[in-house]
Amino acid sequence: MRLKCVDCGSRCSLEPFQVRCGCGGLLEVEQELAMVDAELLKRRFQERLSERMGVYASGVWRYKELIFPELPDEYIVTKYEGNTGMYAPEPIRETLGIRGLYFKAQSENPSGSFKDNGMTVAVSHGRSLGYSAFACTSTGNTSSSLAMYAAMGRSQAYVFVPNRKVSANKVLQTQAYGARVLSFDGTYDDGIRFLEKRGEELGLYVCNSVNPLRIEGQKSIIYEIAQTLGWSLPDWIIIPGGALSNVSALGKGLADLKSLGFIPSVPRIALIQAEGASPFHRMMASGSPVLTPAPRPDTLASALNIGNPPSWKKARSVMEMSSGVTCSVTDAEILAAKAQIDRSGIGCEPASAATLAGLQKLVAEKTITKDETAVCILTGNLLKDTDVLRGSFQDIPVDLSGSDWEALLR
Amino acid sequence: MRLKCVDCGSRCSLEPFQVRCGCGGLLEVEQELAMVDAELLKRRFQERLSERMGVYASGVWRYKELIFPELPDEYIVTKYEGNTGMYAPEPIRETLGIRGLYFKAQSENPSGSFKDNGMTVAVSHGRSLGYSAFACTSTGNTSSSLAMYAAMGRSQAYVFVPNRKVSANKVLQTQAYGARVLSFDGTYDDGIRFLEKRGEELGLYVCNSVNPLRIEGQKSIIYEIAQTLGWSLPDWIIIPGGALSNVSALGKGLADLKSLGFIPSVPRIALIQAEGASPFHRMMASGSPVLTPAPRPDTLASALNIGNPPSWKKARSVMEMSSGVTCSVTDAEILAAKAQIDRSGIGCEPASAATLAGLQKLVAEKTITKDETAVCILTGNLLKDTDVLRGSFQDIPVDLSGSDWEALLR
Ligand SMILES: [Zn+2]
Ligand SMILES: [Zn+2]
Repeated sequence: MRLKCVDCGSRCSLEPFQVRCGCGGLLEVEQELAMVDAELLKRRFQERLSERMGVYASGVWRYKELIFPELPDEYIVTKYEGNTGMYAPEPIRETLGIRGLYFKAQSENPSGSFKDNGMTVAVSHGRSLGYSAFACTSTGNTSSSLAMYAAMGRSQAYVFVPNRKVSANKVLQTQAYGARVLSFDGTYDDGIRFLEKRGEELGLYVCNSVNPLRIEGQKSIIYEIAQTLGWSLPDWIIIPGGALSNVSALGKGLADLKSLGFIPSVPRIALIQAEGASPFHRMMASGSPVLTPAPRPDTLASALNIGNPPSWKKARSVMEMSSGVTCSVTDAEILAAKAQIDRSGIGCEPASAATLAGLQKLVAEKTITKDETAVCILTGNLLKDTDVLRGSFQDIPVDLSGSDWEALLR
Repeated sequence: MRLKCVDCGSRCSLEPFQVRCGCGGLLEVEQELAMVDAELLKRRFQERLSERMGVYASGVWRYKELIFPELPDEYIVTKYEGNTGMYAPEPIRETLGIRGLYFKAQSENPSGSFKDNGMTVAVSHGRSLGYSAFACTSTGNTSSSLAMYAAMGRSQAYVFVPNRKVSANKVLQTQAYGARVLSFDGTYDDGIRFLEKRGEELGLYVCNSVNPLRIEGQKSIIYEIAQTLGWSLPDWIIIPGGALSNVSALGKGLADLKSLGFIPSVPRIALIQAEGASPFHRMMASGSPVLTPAPRPDTLASALNIGNPPSWKKARSVMEMSSGVTCSVTDAEILAAKAQIDRSGIGCEPASAATLAGLQKLVAEKTITKDETAVCILTGNLLKDTDVLRGSFQDIPVDLSGSDWEALLR
């Protein structure tokens, strides 16, 4: 394994570790899949499904040979991440009218979001290099995931946040796991630049979204879907798009499965952004060669509220590779889709519901046809963002001794 | 399978279903384990570990033969509940100084608590009887679990709550899943009596904690621990005690495993109550033959804040069967133990942390010795009760261009 720059193409080793190329470009891991015995791997992956403790009980490390074969097991911190539910809610499928529909609930991960799939790999990698301090700039799902794995590894997590953005509510989980929240005067971009420039020198292993090991871990989401379906995949993979690291990772996973011969062809990806934070969709729709950041991103789907997605180049390659489409949905459409997912008993945070909202739109405009199948990636847990539910609470007063029960319980 | 009254010993069938015996006593399911081929079952349970979709992928229904063999699979609603992590956090074990320590994280269940293990069975049973409306009296983990399974089964959940107790915060998850919250003028006991008396006539399947099918489902927690450890168990099972349905269920699971020959002997149970709501511990400690309810239970561990636990007779039998001990811990001890569990990266709600607080106390007083092993049952997710964390939030202001990083990151 080594790292390759997406921009200048130069290669470097994983040690000493740098989050970005010297040229400023994003790095990605190059795996050597040519020598892999695909049938042997499939058998191993199948056998490991019955593990319940230890490294291979994880829904990420089950696929270790495709993710980080060189890493000694002793450095791995795992909470058996992945292993999340695949659901096929018939009422939602019926309403959509397509042939098959799944929801892959990464929301069921131990810290409550899909970030765990990548973070277990990044933190384990950092430990193998001797780091005992880990850092990121985030107050959302990333910081709680990092805090959890740092704690599992008896290490310290540092979360850098602009001081105007510190909301106790968002970092309660992160703090509970023992992370220290460092607030500074500046923007998120200032925090990111600071960590990329000075992290190594300060002894901090940097776990921001561009960390290429996180992408390797997140690939496992697509492996797990494929394995659950007997090494086949639906026609469409529907992914919410914010920082665009998820679509980059899932695309890489698809390419792996194709080159290993695990799947005959790559399914199409539909990337869904929130209308108020859709610079990538606008770039793709306009045919522009570069992304124009949205200066004031504005969506209530907080996990999608990103104006300058760092992984846009990787995401664009994935869209090409998978004949992908993009679309954007309004906050109202997201909330309506969330209500459907919640009421199906699955549940999710608003960002995840963008998938169903987008799927509805793409079916309506016949980009996705009725005889096709799709899987929606649910990224975050219902319990992660209950603020959006607060307005809708209403109890129904009853009289135990004399209510009109027939009307009430109808 | 049939039901037997714990009080009067009379037996009845599961259809038509009644939550309590006519005499007012609690009912329990009688399984016919005599005819079971234990070795065949073990092999089946092992094979099913690799299932990822369908009924047998569930950590409850994997053990269907021991839980509800007669139930046709078509009625089962499952979210692959169970399948939760077993963790062995070395720092906590070291501090305690005992030989072995596990945490079984039922907190990782799909609705975020151990209630899911039992609720999947109760709701599936209700569906098999033709019910499409389900009810309980609770605003906590029970109601969100019920709401989730009712939604999965395309049914309606009704949650009865005293109107002075309706807290929007506690029922957001329940409401999101589509449950209707009915508020009445009265106490919880009034609500329970109403449902027991009129539920059937109103077409409501009643899912309160005394529902004997819920107990059958919750037994699976002990099966899963035993299977994960190769059909052996630690010396001690540490359980938090509120309504006492969990200790009743886990005790029943232990008795099953013993009579099947899956385990050579029954481990000891330590039941931990919060000092402000410890009527069961006080009964056991004083040698009193009956439980005296605590009129004003008062603990911040909201899931334990129960003054009149309905399942105390079942719990007492379990304590006898398992040479069990009880103890009580203060809220301060619970919060200190919670901080340890959170900082280990596992995380839990306060009620769950009573287990570690109790274990510390029992080790200190040498009831549990250093050469013994224990498993603590974590009942609820960190995200379920973040209110207790709010007071402790604090960020650390830094200056990106000139902080004393060496001191800060030490
Ligand atoms: Zn470069
Ligand atoms: Zn009776």
